[in-house]
Amino acid sequence: MVTPTTVRTVDLRSDTVTKPTESMRSAMAKAEVDDDVLGNDPTAMRLEKEMAEIAGKEAAMFVPSGTMANLISVLIHCDERGSEVILGDDCHIHIYENGGVSSLGGVHPRTVKNEEDGTMKIGSIEAAVRGHKGDLHHPVTKLICLENTQANRGGRCLPVEYIDKVGEVAKKHGLKLHIDGARIFNASVALGVPVKRIVQAADSVSICLSKGIGAPVGSVIVGSKKFITKARWLRKTLGGGMRQIGVLCAAALVALNENVPKLDDDHKKAKILAEGLNRIERLKVNVAAVETNIIYVDIPEDPKFGAEDACKSLKDVGVLVIPQSTFRMRIVLHHQISDDDVDYVLSCFQKMF
Amino acid sequence: MVTPTTVRTVDLRSDTVTKPTESMRSAMAKAEVDDDVLGNDPTAMRLEKEMAEIAGKEAAMFVPSGTMANLISVLIHCDERGSEVILGDDCHIHIYENGGVSSLGGVHPRTVKNEEDGTMKIGSIEAAVRGHKGDLHHPVTKLICLENTQANRGGRCLPVEYIDKVGEVAKKHGLKLHIDGARIFNASVALGVPVKRIVQAADSVSICLSKGIGAPVGSVIVGSKKFITKARWLRKTLGGGMRQIGVLCAAALVALNENVPKLDDDHKKAKILAEGLNRIERLKVNVAAVETNIIYVDIPEDPKFGAEDACKSLKDVGVLVIPQSTFRMRIVLHHQISDDDVDYVLSCFQKMF
Amino acid sequence: MVTPTTVRTVDLRSDTVTKPTESMRSAMAKAEVDDDVLGNDPTAMRLEKEMAEIAGKEAAMFVPSGTMANLISVLIHCDERGSEVILGDDCHIHIYENGGVSSLGGVHPRTVKNEEDGTMKIGSIEAAVRGHKGDLHHPVTKLICLENTQANRGGRCLPVEYIDKVGEVAKKHGLKLHIDGARIFNASVALGVPVKRIVQAADSVSICLSKGIGAPVGSVIVGSKKFITKARWLRKTLGGGMRQIGVLCAAALVALNENVPKLDDDHKKAKILAEGLNRIERLKVNVAAVETNIIYVDIPEDPKFGAEDACKSLKDVGVLVIPQSTFRMRIVLHHQISDDDVDYVLSCFQKMF
Amino acid sequence: MVTPTTVRTVDLRSDTVTKPTESMRSAMAKAEVDDDVLGNDPTAMRLEKEMAEIAGKEAAMFVPSGTMANLISVLIHCDERGSEVILGDDCHIHIYENGGVSSLGGVHPRTVKNEEDGTMKIGSIEAAVRGHKGDLHHPVTKLICLENTQANRGGRCLPVEYIDKVGEVAKKHGLKLHIDGARIFNASVALGVPVKRIVQAADSVSICLSKGIGAPVGSVIVGSKKFITKARWLRKTLGGGMRQIGVLCAAALVALNENVPKLDDDHKKAKILAEGLNRIERLKVNVAAVETNIIYVDIPEDPKFGAEDACKSLKDVGVLVIPQSTFRMRIVLHHQISDDDVDYVLSCFQKMF
Repeated sequence: MVTPTTVRTVDLRSDTVTKPTESMRSAMAKAEVDDDVLGNDPTAMRLEKEMAEIAGKEAAMFVPSGTMANLISVLIHCDERGSEVILGDDCHIHIYENGGVSSLGGVHPRTVKNEEDGTMKIGSIEAAVRGHKGDLHHPVTKLICLENTQANRGGRCLPVEYIDKVGEVAKKHGLKLHIDGARIFNASVALGVPVKRIVQAADSVSICLSKGIGAPVGSVIVGSKKFITKARWLRKTLGGGMRQIGVLCAAALVALNENVPKLDDDHKKAKILAEGLNRIERLKVNVAAVETNIIYVDIPEDPKFGAEDACKSLKDVGVLVIPQSTFRMRIVLHHQISDDDVDYVLSCFQKMF
Repeated sequence: MVTPTTVRTVDLRSDTVTKPTESMRSAMAKAEVDDDVLGNDPTAMRLEKEMAEIAGKEAAMFVPSGTMANLISVLIHCDERGSEVILGDDCHIHIYENGGVSSLGGVHPRTVKNEEDGTMKIGSIEAAVRGHKGDLHHPVTKLICLENTQANRGGRCLPVEYIDKVGEVAKKHGLKLHIDGARIFNASVALGVPVKRIVQAADSVSICLSKGIGAPVGSVIVGSKKFITKARWLRKTLGGGMRQIGVLCAAALVALNENVPKLDDDHKKAKILAEGLNRIERLKVNVAAVETNIIYVDIPEDPKFGAEDACKSLKDVGVLVIPQSTFRMRIVLHHQISDDDVDYVLSCFQKMF
Repeated sequence: MVTPTTVRTVDLRSDTVTKPTESMRSAMAKAEVDDDVLGNDPTAMRLEKEMAEIAGKEAAMFVPSGTMANLISVLIHCDERGSEVILGDDCHIHIYENGGVSSLGGVHPRTVKNEEDGTMKIGSIEAAVRGHKGDLHHPVTKLICLENTQANRGGRCLPVEYIDKVGEVAKKHGLKLHIDGARIFNASVALGVPVKRIVQAADSVSICLSKGIGAPVGSVIVGSKKFITKARWLRKTLGGGMRQIGVLCAAALVALNENVPKLDDDHKKAKILAEGLNRIERLKVNVAAVETNIIYVDIPEDPKFGAEDACKSLKDVGVLVIPQSTFRMRIVLHHQISDDDVDYVLSCFQKMF
Repeated sequence: MVTPTTVRTVDLRSDTVTKPTESMRSAMAKAEVDDDVLGNDPTAMRLEKEMAEIAGKEAAMFVPSGTMANLISVLIHCDERGSEVILGDDCHIHIYENGGVSSLGGVHPRTVKNEEDGTMKIGSIEAAVRGHKGDLHHPVTKLICLENTQANRGGRCLPVEYIDKVGEVAKKHGLKLHIDGARIFNASVALGVPVKRIVQAADSVSICLSKGIGAPVGSVIVGSKKFITKARWLRKTLGGGMRQIGVLCAAALVALNENVPKLDDDHKKAKILAEGLNRIERLKVNVAAVETNIIYVDIPEDPKFGAEDACKSLKDVGVLVIPQSTFRMRIVLHHQISDDDVDYVLSCFQKMF
C-alpha cells in the first residue's frame, strides 16, 4: 500500500537520470583499460565490437554523449562547405543540440515537418533534396536524418518499412542516411524487430548508452570502417577523445546485458501509468501514442496553474517530472522505477488534479 | 500590331536582367571617383547618403549584391557563436542564398512557415524565440528576418502594420529585425507608403539596386552608424570592398531617379499580362495575388509538357521566362518591357496553350 | 621646374588609388552587357577568356576584389573540414585579409617564415606538411600559398625557379598551389617572364585589375574549369555574384591593353625615386630591393617624429603616403604618377628631412 | 638486478597512459552520482570546487579532455566573428589539436615564435596585438595563450614573473589570457610555486587530470563564474555534457590526493634517466632542460636508423617511447614507472646505442 507521506524521490525527468547499478560499479572497478586515444583500450574495443554487431555495421566508436554522436555523424556526412542536411523540424538534432551542426560545422539545416507520428512525408523529403544540378543559389543536400524513437513525439517509433523507404530516397539521390537512435533499443523492443534490421538502411546510427540502458556515461556511433576512421579524427578535434575509457565501457557492457531485457517492462509501466493518468478526469493522455517509455500528460489550460507549476508541486512530494510545454508534462520511465513508484506517482497526480 | 515572326527577345526571367540605360552609362563615364576601401569615393558617399535618407536610417553602405547585403546583415546581428535567426521557410535568404548564413557564418536558421501572403504568424514567430533563459540545449535567438516584397510569393507585399507587429515582438524579446528589401521599392509603390515608413521597425534593410531599379550592379544595406561600421569590416572580410565604385554608384543614382517612378507602370503591366494569361483557358493565374511585378502562371499538369518544356518552347519565340516549379512558370516585369512586349508575350502563350 | 607651393595631390598610398582613364570610361559607357549571374554577360566572358589565356589556365572568373579572389581560392582548395593551408607569416592573405580563411572558412593557417626576399625556405614548407598519415592530432595540409610580388616585402618578386620548386613540393605531397598574384603583372615585367610561365606550377592564381593595371574595380581568379565551376558557386555564396558586370570588365579590358605596357615605367620611376630618397642623408632606402613599384623609406628613429607624423606632414603638401611601421613609410608608384610628380615628392622629402 | 630478458612493459609514450589505481577504482565503485547535465552530480561538484580552489578561480568545470578544455576556453574568449588568438608557433593548441579553434570556431591564429625555453618574447606578443583601431584589414586580437609546462619544449616551465608580464600585456590591450595547464601541477612542483600563484594572471586555465595525475579520464577548466556558465553551454554544444560523471570525478579526486605529491619523484626519475642517457656516448640529452617529467633523446643522424626505427627496436624489449622528430625520441615519466623500470630502460638504450 502506497503511503504518500513517505519521503521518497521518483525521478521521471528523463531516462538519463538512471544511476549505475552495483554490477556496473563492480565492472568499472575491475575494468581492463589502456589509453584509448592511442587506440589500445581493450574494454572499449570489446564494447565497440559488440555495438557494431548489434547494429549490423562494420565498426563502432564510443563518444561522451549522444549530442557528440549526432554532431560527428552529421559533420562527417556533410564534410564539404555548402552541405545541407534534411531533418525533422521537431527532431532532437534541430531543437535540442544548440544548433551545433551550423554553429560548429557550418551545415545548413533544411527542415521537413514532423507529423504526429514522428515521420516526415516521403514526398516532402524528396522535394527538399537539391543542389545536385549545380544551381548557383542552392547548398547541396548530403544527408537525411531520422530519429527513432522520436523524443519530441513522446517516444513514438518509426516503423522499419518507413525507414527503408527513406533509405531508398537517400540512395536514389546519392545521399547518406543517419539515424539518431538515442533510444533505438526502445524502438527495437516496441517494434519487436532487432536493432540491426531497423537501421539496415542507415549509413550511421548514434546509440545512447546512458538513457534507458542505464550506463553512467556515453553513446556509440556505428557505421562503415571508413566512416568510423573519420569519426575518430573528428572526435579528437571536438575534444571527445578520452584516455582510460574502459572504466566507462565496462559499465556500458553490463548495462547492455542487464537492462536491454528490462526495457519491455519500462514500456509496460509507461502504459499502466499512462492509462492511470488518463483516467483522472482533468488530465488527458493519448494512451495509444505511448509506444515506449515516454508519456505526455496534458493538464487543463489554467493560466494560473501550468505545467511548470504542476512540476513544482509534484517535486514537493518527491515526484520529478519536467514541463514539455505550457500545459503538457513529460514523464519518462526507466529501469529504476518500480511498480510501487508508478502507484505512488499516480496517487500524487490524483491528489493534485 | 504584334508580329510573332519578328525576331525579338522579351526577357522576363527576372528584373535583374535590366540593362543600364544611356543616362546611366553617361553617368558612369563622368562619375567622380576615388578609392572606396580607403573611404574616399565621393559618388559612393552620395549614393549612401541618399539611400540612408530614403530608408530613414542613419547610414548606408554599397555592396556588390543582395546576397552579400543579407549575409552581412544576418552575420552582424548574429555575431556571437550559437546565434539563431528566425526566418520564413520559403524566404530568399533560406532558399536561394546557398545557406551562407550557416555555411560561412555558423548561424542556425529556425524557420517559421511562410503563409500564402508571405507573412509568418506572429504567434509562431514568438513561439520560436528561445535561448534567453540559458537552457543548455538551445541556441540563442538574435534576429528575425522578413522579406518585402516576398520573392517566393510572387512579389506579394507585407503590410506596414504586420511589420510593425513583428518589430514589437523583436523589441519585446531583445531581438533585431532585418528586412530583405531587395524589392522594397516595389512594395513601397504597391502599398503607397514611403520606404522609410515600411522599414521603420527594422534595424537593418538590404535594398537591391540592380533589380527593378535597373542599375547594373549593387545593393545597399541601411542601418545605424554602429551597424554600418561593423558592416564595412565584414564587407572587406567577404571580399566585397571595392575600389572606384563611384562608377557603379553613379549609375545607381540615375536608376533611383529615373526608374523608381516607373515601377507603378511595371505593376500595371504585370496586372494586364496576368489577366490576359488567366483568360487563356488552360492557364491559371491568381490575378489578385499579383501585387507588384511578378506573375506565377500555372500550366496544366501534363507530365509530358511541364514548366521546363514550356520555357524552352517560349525561348524559341524569344520569350524568356523561368520555371518556378514543375507546372508553374515565373514572369517578372521591369522597365525594359514595353506594352508591345506584353502583347507579344500574351500572343505567344495563346499559341502555345 | 617644381613649385612646391602649387596645390597638387600626389597619391602614393597604393596603386589601388588609380582612377579610370577616359578610354576606360568610354568603354564602360559602350559595354555590351547581360546578367552575369545568369551567365550571359559577353564582356565578362571576353575578359575571362583573355585572362585565362594570359595565365595559361583553362578558365577565369571576375570577382569584386583580390580579397575575395584569395578567399574563394583558399576555400575551394580546402573544401573539407579540418584543412590546413601553408602560407607566409607576413603574406597578404594572413596579415591583411581579416583572417577570413579561418573566420569564414574554418581553414587552419600554418605559417612559415617569409625571408627578406619574400620566399619561404623550401625545407620549411615541406616540414610543415602534415596530416596525411591520419594522425589524430593534426589537420590535413591541402594547400600552399605564395604571393608574387610580395606586398609586405616592398613588392619583391619570387623567381620562376623558386615557384617551380614549391610546385614540386606541392605535387609530391598531393597539395594544391595557389598564387596571390595581385601584382603578378609587375612581377612579369620585372622578371621579364610571361605571366603564364611564372604561374605554370600553380593550380589557381588571383590577379588584381584595380591595382597597377588601373581598372576601377575587380580581380580575376584563374584555374582549371572544374575549379572555376566551384568558384562560381562560392562567389555567389559570398555575395560576389553581380549582374551587368560588363561595365566593369570593359574597363578592365582597356586597362590590360593600355596599362600593362606602362608598368615598366612605374618601376623605373620607383627606382629613380628610391635612389633620390636614399641620397637624403637622414633617410634610408634599400634601393636594390626596389624591384617593382613599391618603396620602403626608413626615417630616423625619433620617437617624436615617426612615420605617422611624417605622413601627416607630407599630406599638408599634397603627398599621400602611408606608414608601413613605426619608422617606415610605404610609397607606391603607378601609371598616374608623372616624372614631375616624382621630382615634387623628392623635393618635399628633402625639405622635411 | 635488471634482467633485460624479463617480459615487461615500460610505457613511456606519455603520462596519459597511466592507469587508474586500486584506490581510484574503489572510489569509482562507491561514487555518489547524479545527472550532471541536469546539474546535480555531487561528486562532480566536489571536484570542481576543489579544482577552483587549487587554481584560485571562482569556478571550474569537468570536461572529457584537455583538447576540449582548450577549445572551449579559446572559443569563449573569442566569441565574436573575426577574433584572433596569439599563441606559440609550437604550442599544443596550434600543433596538436587539429586546428579546431579555426575549423570549428572560426578563430584566426596568430603565432609568435616559441623560444628554446618555451616563452614568446614579450615584445613580439605585443607587436602581434591588432585590430583594436578598427582597421578594415585586420581581425581583432582577443586572447593570448600560454602553455605551462610546454609539451613541445620537453616539459619546460614558464616562470611566474614571465606569466605575470604577459598578463600585463593582456590587460593593457584589453585581451584575455588563457593558460593551457595540461601539466600545470608539474610546473607547480618544479617551480615550487602553488598553482594558484602561477595562473594568477590568467582568465582561464585548462588542467588535465589524466596525464601525470593519473585519473582515467578528464580535464578541468577554471575561470570566473560567468566564464564557466558560458563554458557549460559550449560544452553541451560540443557534446561534452555527460551524465553520471561522478564516477570519473571520484577517481580524479583520489588522483589529486594521491599523485600530486608523487610528481616530484617523477621529475627526479626523469633527471636520473636523462643523465644516464646522456652518458651514453652516441646519445645526447639536454639534461638542464629536463625540468619536469619529459626527456628528449637525440640519436645519431643515421638515415638508416632514425627515431622511428629506434622506437620499434625498443618496443621489442618492452620499452614504449615515441618519436618526437626524425632523430629525436620523447620519453615521459609518470607515477607508474619505478626506479627499476628506469634502470631497465637505461640498460636497453645502452644495448642499442
